[in-house]
Amino acid sequence: MSEGVSWSSALQAALGSLEEGGRVSLASGDLAGHAHDEGVPFTSVPGAVVFAHSEDDILATLAVARQYSVPVTPWGAGTSLEGAVLPASGGISLDLGALDSMADLDPVGFTVRVGPGVRRVALNRRLRPHGLFFPVDPGADATLGGMAATNASGTTTVRYGGMRENVMALRVALMDGRVLKLGSLARKSSSGYALKQLLIGSEGTLGVLTSLTLRLHPLPPATVSTQLAFPDVAAAVSASVVLRGLGLVPERLEFVDADTVAAVNRHRARHDPELPTLWVELAGRDAADAEAGLALLREVAAETGGQVVGEARTPEAQSDLWAARHGVYDALRAAWPGHATRIGDICVPLSALSETASFMAQTLARYALTAPLVGHIGDGNLHLLMHAPPGDAAAWERIDHALHAIALHALSVGGTCTGEHGIGLRKRVYMREEHGEALNLMRDIKTLFDPQNLLNPGKVVGEID
Amino acid sequence: MSEGVSWSSALQAALGSLEEGGRVSLASGDLAGHAHDEGVPFTSVPGAVVFAHSEDDILATLAVARQYSVPVTPWGAGTSLEGAVLPASGGISLDLGALDSMADLDPVGFTVRVGPGVRRVALNRRLRPHGLFFPVDPGADATLGGMAATNASGTTTVRYGGMRENVMALRVALMDGRVLKLGSLARKSSSGYALKQLLIGSEGTLGVLTSLTLRLHPLPPATVSTQLAFPDVAAAVSASVVLRGLGLVPERLEFVDADTVAAVNRHRARHDPELPTLWVELAGRDAADAEAGLALLREVAAETGGQVVGEARTPEAQSDLWAARHGVYDALRAAWPGHATRIGDICVPLSALSETASFMAQTLARYALTAPLVGHIGDGNLHLLMHAPPGDAAAWERIDHALHAIALHALSVGGTCTGEHGIGLRKRVYMREEHGEALNLMRDIKTLFDPQNLLNPGKVVGEID
Repeated sequence: MSEGVSWSSALQAALGSLEEGGRVSLASGDLAGHAHDEGVPFTSVPGAVVFAHSEDDILATLAVARQYSVPVTPWGAGTSLEGAVLPASGGISLDLGALDSMADLDPVGFTVRVGPGVRRVALNRRLRPHGLFFPVDPGADATLGGMAATNASGTTTVRYGGMRENVMALRVALMDGRVLKLGSLARKSSSGYALKQLLIGSEGTLGVLTSLTLRLHPLPPATVSTQLAFPDVAAAVSASVVLRGLGLVPERLEFVDADTVAAVNRHRARHDPELPTLWVELAGRDAADAEAGLALLREVAAETGGQVVGEARTPEAQSDLWAARHGVYDALRAAWPGHATRIGDICVPLSALSETASFMAQTLARYALTAPLVGHIGDGNLHLLMHAPPGDAAAWERIDHALHAIALHALSVGGTCTGEHGIGLRKRVYMREEHGEALNLMRDIKTLFDPQNLLNPGKVVGEID
Repeated sequence: MSEGVSWSSALQAALGSLEEGGRVSLASGDLAGHAHDEGVPFTSVPGAVVFAHSEDDILATLAVARQYSVPVTPWGAGTSLEGAVLPASGGISLDLGALDSMADLDPVGFTVRVGPGVRRVALNRRLRPHGLFFPVDPGADATLGGMAATNASGTTTVRYGGMRENVMALRVALMDGRVLKLGSLARKSSSGYALKQLLIGSEGTLGVLTSLTLRLHPLPPATVSTQLAFPDVAAAVSASVVLRGLGLVPERLEFVDADTVAAVNRHRARHDPELPTLWVELAGRDAADAEAGLALLREVAAETGGQVVGEARTPEAQSDLWAARHGVYDALRAAWPGHATRIGDICVPLSALSETASFMAQTLARYALTAPLVGHIGDGNLHLLMHAPPGDAAAWERIDHALHAIALHALSVGGTCTGEHGIGLRKRVYMREEHGEALNLMRDIKTLFDPQNLLNPGKVVGEID
């Protein structure tokens, strides 16, 4: 890294500078734009940004990085929450956003091949005319490459799984310049070691994804949505478990706590019961089928003490009903203007959900904090939307302590320190507790793929500084 | 291995001999019983069998193996088809069948922990009173450890996925004596590298599974089954794809070719139309729901030229209807008494299914062979049940050539050389063609986990002798 001038010159020689129609930018605006993600409060400014347009651009970047021992961190949309896309200071940020082509749509095999820079919303817009969609929905309009890199999941995972279940094949550029083809177009395989799964969730530390083949699903013929309020969190959890036990697999199954419903009410002038609330979307073969599912769900709610807040059948009505769930973040920003946010994400066994929600409430109280609790409850995945004024160091310290206690609690009940946001920089501290001896094997694998430790160094399996 | 006497004495010293209540057998009957699987026509006799009862027994076995450089091959039920469980000649066969405990059943979290020796049928018998089941059904009454080791799947994978989607956590003994805990009780995670997935499907070459935590599912409240005959294979495939496109996800979706229906007719005195046939099981919230699904399926069949052969609603009637599908192997044995069998398994994209079935028929004709074609068609997974007199070397050579051509065809259309049987010994020949450069990484990972190459050596990633 001491040869800063020489490696960036080599990079420009290999890939051209951006102002001359090439790929490499040293402009301060581009550097600053790649110095932060959407979660961590600190920045790390790269020495150069490569806007790759092809696998060859990626390989040329890795060649220079190898030659000059410069760290390289892949960049998608920058929507990471735990620092996964933060470049090493003075290193290369490898922006894959321009690799946004979509090819080989196979409506019979239910697959499509995309560049790692394709974004989720655009993908689904392009798939809709074919009656197909890609279900994984982490909320943010992330890139598919980034989503694979963090094994993203979200609202629909209860029904369709996350990235690990919906990526059929990958092309991966390794730090040493080799390109791997992992997986196949077959819907299952027992052929060899699961390197595709190893790369998914490795957060750009093992290789750079240059292409992904995705598993698509037919758009449901009919959907209905309902909003259900419960006397307490345990009842809401119980309803979720009972409906799963009946074999009713919703398209989405979301939870929001009472205080947050109140905040959304204030923000949107709604009058929803200020109680723990579930939003459920059900699909059916046709409207009557969806309706019959809804009737069963109503019975489950009644048995567990729930009340129907609303039901929605048309796309517009469903959009309105879900707006309250999707409005949590905006309500938070309106309730606490100027606050910065930090979203903590854990995942626990369904049988530990109630207890974990109680523990979270107690922990917030203990540290004199308030924070919306939002969950992909069908998966046991809970999020706390922590917030405080950016400069309130004492508050941020309390937030750190609270999230720490909650992550350790998740591990103590057999869960994981992150259900879908990834490890990045900030959750490395839990890797030993969660994985024990396996962390050493992960580090060995990192060394195998990247012996010089140049690819997104320090992330996931890195030692804590 | 030249110190045969000394290592087996050390093994007996560490674990006790079987006749004295210990774990180690050198008896010829036990050795012969662990010298073959159910697929490959050759044997490989171990020098000792360890009947492990605990993780400690496994670790003690690995310690002796390490000290004396003796190969160890885990053994479940011996139902492997490609040689995965064949011990190295004169090595240790590590029989895990006695690790058959079931613990920590969590009916709210939908999980259970089992020993690797628990068998599929017994597991489901024990789960049934709780309204739960473990869906992965490879046909054979395999052990859960063996199923995880080969990433087994089967008839229900179209709905529930295979082992990779249904194993929550593993304990794994490594060759060097370390024990890893992989995965968690959370239904999803973005924490660290997917070592659990790496171990699943590694066929005992990376570690010995000592415990598995499984993801359970509620028994469907109602099911119906139907048998549908089609004018040709393309129409049957088309029906499968259309019903998937409608969002109808059956519990099972199986295919059998016309000649095989004829053979089953002869064997069971049935009079089913001797045409390409689908068997479909649908589940519903209740009987009416399942019936409505069936009505839609009837429409799909009619549109694609299919006719309803039978429909079944009660458990008895469904069992009878499915008997024709499950009777294929018996019909084959009855039609060709004394023949040995070899089941070839490939998996292709759904869009290549018709073409692949045609290629299979042409290939059989070219090599003057007949063989039932049976498929988990919703996954694109096709099986040919090859057969010939055991001593007919010329026929077996033709079978080899035909299966070889078919495996290469599967790869040429973007599929895999094995959808669910694994690589074992016999399919190593396709590893380079299927995985290219990635095979080298797999070998590097094998070396990382097992530098002395003692754990099920030669399998999956081994060089061809």
